[in-house]
Amino acid sequence: MDIQRIDQYAKEMIFEAGKRIRDAFSYDLKVETKSGANDLVTNIDRETELFFIEKIKAFDATHKIIGEEGMGEKVDSLEGPVWIIDPIDGTMNFVKQHRHFFITIGFFVDGIGKLGYIFDVMREDLFYAIEGKGAWYNDSPMRKLQPLKIEEAIIGINASWVTPNSYLNHEKMIELIHTIRGTRSYGSAAMEIAFVVSGKLDAYISMCLSPWDIGGGTVIAKEVGAIATNLKGEYFDFLNPDTFIIANPSIHQKILEHYIEEK
Amino acid sequence: MDIQRIDQYAKEMIFEAGKRIRDAFSYDLKVETKSGANDLVTNIDRETELFFIEKIKAFDATHKIIGEEGMGEKVDSLEGPVWIIDPIDGTMNFVKQHRHFFITIGFFVDGIGKLGYIFDVMREDLFYAIEGKGAWYNDSPMRKLQPLKIEEAIIGINASWVTPNSYLNHEKMIELIHTIRGTRSYGSAAMEIAFVVSGKLDAYISMCLSPWDIGGGTVIAKEVGAIATNLKGEYFDFLNPDTFIIANPSIHQKILEHYIEEK
Repeated sequence: MDIQRIDQYAKEMIFEAGKRIRDAFSYDLKVETKSGANDLVTNIDRETELFFIEKIKAFDATHKIIGEEGMGEKVDSLEGPVWIIDPIDGTMNFVKQHRHFFITIGFFVDGIGKLGYIFDVMREDLFYAIEGKGAWYNDSPMRKLQPLKIEEAIIGINASWVTPNSYLNHEKMIELIHTIRGTRSYGSAAMEIAFVVSGKLDAYISMCLSPWDIGGGTVIAKEVGAIATNLKGEYFDFLNPDTFIIANPSIHQKILEHYIEEK
Repeated sequence: MDIQRIDQYAKEMIFEAGKRIRDAFSYDLKVETKSGANDLVTNIDRETELFFIEKIKAFDATHKIIGEEGMGEKVDSLEGPVWIIDPIDGTMNFVKQHRHFFITIGFFVDGIGKLGYIFDVMREDLFYAIEGKGAWYNDSPMRKLQPLKIEEAIIGINASWVTPNSYLNHEKMIELIHTIRGTRSYGSAAMEIAFVVSGKLDAYISMCLSPWDIGGGTVIAKEVGAIATNLKGEYFDFLNPDTFIIANPSIHQKILEHYIEEK
């Protein structure tokens, strides 16, 4: 399998999809159909997924596709080549903010992540990786993450997870946020993962993510040394939703041991 | 007083300061002095404030200046023309993320906000307003905020404020975040205020902000109909730190009445 060629094809698809979204979007901005914003987003989301499916099937009809919008076939195993696609991660940001939404794509072969992409559609910023070759932010190689103390960490975490909830002992999460330097929350898992792999955040924690939210990100994670698991410390299976943490390797285990207590 | 001329001068200052910061910053990125990042930021912060002070004094030496870095004279009244300046809001973002930091400036006369600016240094995006004339995002006029239900609101709030704290009954804040659609947290008050005035967020709440964090933002708020007060619903006095909320007018009062209980 020619991974370089697939990488090239994937990038071309992503840039083209990004342009299509920006074009559809700027048209909407002009016509100001505010009341129809949700429908418009659903349409753009689905059209973008269909665009990816058509492109991938044209490339190789045997490749399987797992997509957020469920426009492809049902996939129940990661055997062979599988694309995991989120055409627009951060839908609310797309509607209200006109920024902070992302295309994210992972390409797996027999369950092993080969290629990963997180694309900031409005900034036209691409974070990507090729398994075993490294990770890049646009044209610059990304560095391995540097160790830090947990007290210096900035962590992406939604405020809900520090309030009583059915997933976690929230008292432990309160201890965590009182220990670290600060928290952020952007409303897009792909954005928070992109920030972790590039050292802009030191961890990101979520109680429930789907394979398409993290597929591309986990491939980039491996190349920069970030550790991505569920909250039990196990690898995500990429077929079902699960809890999720991605972190700088110097604090991943410490967060799981000291601050995460699943119910 | 020729407000249009002052507006023109202010914008020129801001764009020039932004360029100086980006230049200093890209030099740092090249030399990769990671260990000295904090010192570098302190220096850029101070140099930028000094730059503004010199520019303003050259324009009119009688204008007073309140700045975060305290490089100007002591100001204990808002009488006459007063500039309120934060040369870099979002210092941690500046250090770690190389984005999401802002110059924000307010120009007041006898305590009345006349001009307000929030400038995204890396994106080169300017949100600004002239009292009574309107507000702009770059060259586009900003619209008055449209009413919404609290259940639809996205609110900027730090996770700390939904945990036990000395300012507020956090149980009420938990009720708030369970009522609304979502929360965000960006690590820059100026960014969150810019997002509220442009309808990208519907409110932003903080337990402690200083005059320079919000001076410029409150002038923009007025032009788009956002309401900015402390958490008692009173106007900020711009000489002392205080609690703060800026919100879409349809939910400001509701948040204060139902969800804020100061200790």
